[in-house]
Amino acid sequence: MIKRLTIFGVGLIGGSLALALKRAGYCEHVVGCSRQESGLQKALELGVIDEYTLDPIEAVKGSDMVLLAVPMGAMGAVLASIKGHTDANAVITDAGSAKASVVAAAQAVFGDLPDYFVPAHPIAGREKSGVEAAIVDLYDDHKVIVTPLPETSSEAEQRVIAMWQAAGAQVESMSVKKHDHVLAATSHLPHVLAYSLVDTLSKSEVSDDIFHYAAGGFRDFTRIASSDPVMWRDICLENREAILQSIEDFQSNLQSLHDLVSDADSARIMDVFAHAKSVRDAYMKNQS
Amino acid sequence: MIKRLTIFGVGLIGGSLALALKRAGYCEHVVGCSRQESGLQKALELGVIDEYTLDPIEAVKGSDMVLLAVPMGAMGAVLASIKGHTDANAVITDAGSAKASVVAAAQAVFGDLPDYFVPAHPIAGREKSGVEAAIVDLYDDHKVIVTPLPETSSEAEQRVIAMWQAAGAQVESMSVKKHDHVLAATSHLPHVLAYSLVDTLSKSEVSDDIFHYAAGGFRDFTRIASSDPVMWRDICLENREAILQSIEDFQSNLQSLHDLVSDADSARIMDVFAHAKSVRDAYMKNQS
Repeated sequence: MIKRLTIFGVGLIGGSLALALKRAGYCEHVVGCSRQESGLQKALELGVIDEYTLDPIEAVKGSDMVLLAVPMGAMGAVLASIKGHTDANAVITDAGSAKASVVAAAQAVFGDLPDYFVPAHPIAGREKSGVEAAIVDLYDDHKVIVTPLPETSSEAEQRVIAMWQAAGAQVESMSVKKHDHVLAATSHLPHVLAYSLVDTLSKSEVSDDIFHYAAGGFRDFTRIASSDPVMWRDICLENREAILQSIEDFQSNLQSLHDLVSDADSARIMDVFAHAKSVRDAYMKNQS
Repeated sequence: MIKRLTIFGVGLIGGSLALALKRAGYCEHVVGCSRQESGLQKALELGVIDEYTLDPIEAVKGSDMVLLAVPMGAMGAVLASIKGHTDANAVITDAGSAKASVVAAAQAVFGDLPDYFVPAHPIAGREKSGVEAAIVDLYDDHKVIVTPLPETSSEAEQRVIAMWQAAGAQVESMSVKKHDHVLAATSHLPHVLAYSLVDTLSKSEVSDDIFHYAAGGFRDFTRIASSDPVMWRDICLENREAILQSIEDFQSNLQSLHDLVSDADSARIMDVFAHAKSVRDAYMKNQS
């Protein structure tokens, strides 16, 4: 149980967690904090939070759980604003899509990392954003990855795991490095490829025709190129090393496939396509 | 009106055309021909065709319209088998996904291209294939591209256009070269990228984790990697030059984006992502 939960950044991610914890009866009181009062007022009206304040120190006073659900570039500033002001039994966690950069921001603020800091990442989202998009079942059967550090206390980790489980999520732990690598491959790379494909096609001399004749497969393939560009730019900057490595691995594979097509190597093209299909079909089977 | 339509290869594409023309009352009699009797028998049972034969010469006798809906690698052999045996008023058309290779096959068979040969490409499909997958509304509001050659008579072109319109399609004409370029960009390149992405990830040292944590965006993005590998290998071979050019254009764009991420060039990453989002959003708006 959480007595008092403070959420910095009450948007889709933070708001949906608040709704899910209320549904579970797992949290007595939710306090919102951000720099924009209008969003907090809206969150209050929607019943997502119980009160709000614009003062970070006020916000964390008496809270046993503090969630940072702000853009990743703002994590350091929020941590600096609450440093030394959280309760003795408070746990601090976050919801950023890349973990090494959040850990680096925390290190810059705290020096030695506190044992009550638990980086985490809920793998869930919607195309809409903002507190109006918050829904109670956003995390149901979705995965949350917790990336405890050597400094993190087991008790703090367990409290964060229990919170996300109460919100309906399946929680798993892994290292920061592995998290960033896996997410670069499964999520960040596909977004980069989709943006790059649409950008490439828009610059073709026949781009009007290209978009005129594009059909269903293209629609699905490029859906993620309609994602929020600010958020994805930030993710590219925050998980830069892992994303660059993923792009390079992909470029190397694509170059090989290009060469097989250039050589008209029918058998080996077939091997690549058939292998990819079997892997993708197996993935879908495991999903259902 | 078509009096007698011969379809070589009665699968999803040919079978769905037959059903749509029957619905429109646009075709009196449909004859199926292929090398496998079992599929033709099935097509007859399903009411897709009115009769069948395994003999190509028999199949085209008395027909005023001949459709080649066989795999692209088989186009040349079918054309050779019917050369000199079609009726004086017959039009020959095809449904291949790449056009230059079909034209080259026809040239190899006929020498000078006949004025009654009209290359065409219906842009429609399903994940299932075979005559059992044929549906009457496959072409409704879908595009069919006709690529008449300098040798093609206007009358033959108009008869093919009228047939596809009767089947519910929106028909447009363009050059073979432009068709192959546009399709490489909108359809063939995305398939190559999806296959390459899944292949890349499957070879990662953490591939089990990658597929374990992949979420909704990944599912959509890789859906086309579950497409028929034989068909897509053939398309890569048949539209090789245009596909290679599309891959190279994409590689160049992706390398630029890689370098922007490497340089942490926040403003220019944002430009690319925001531009791509606006282009993709505009595309979706035009679709609806």
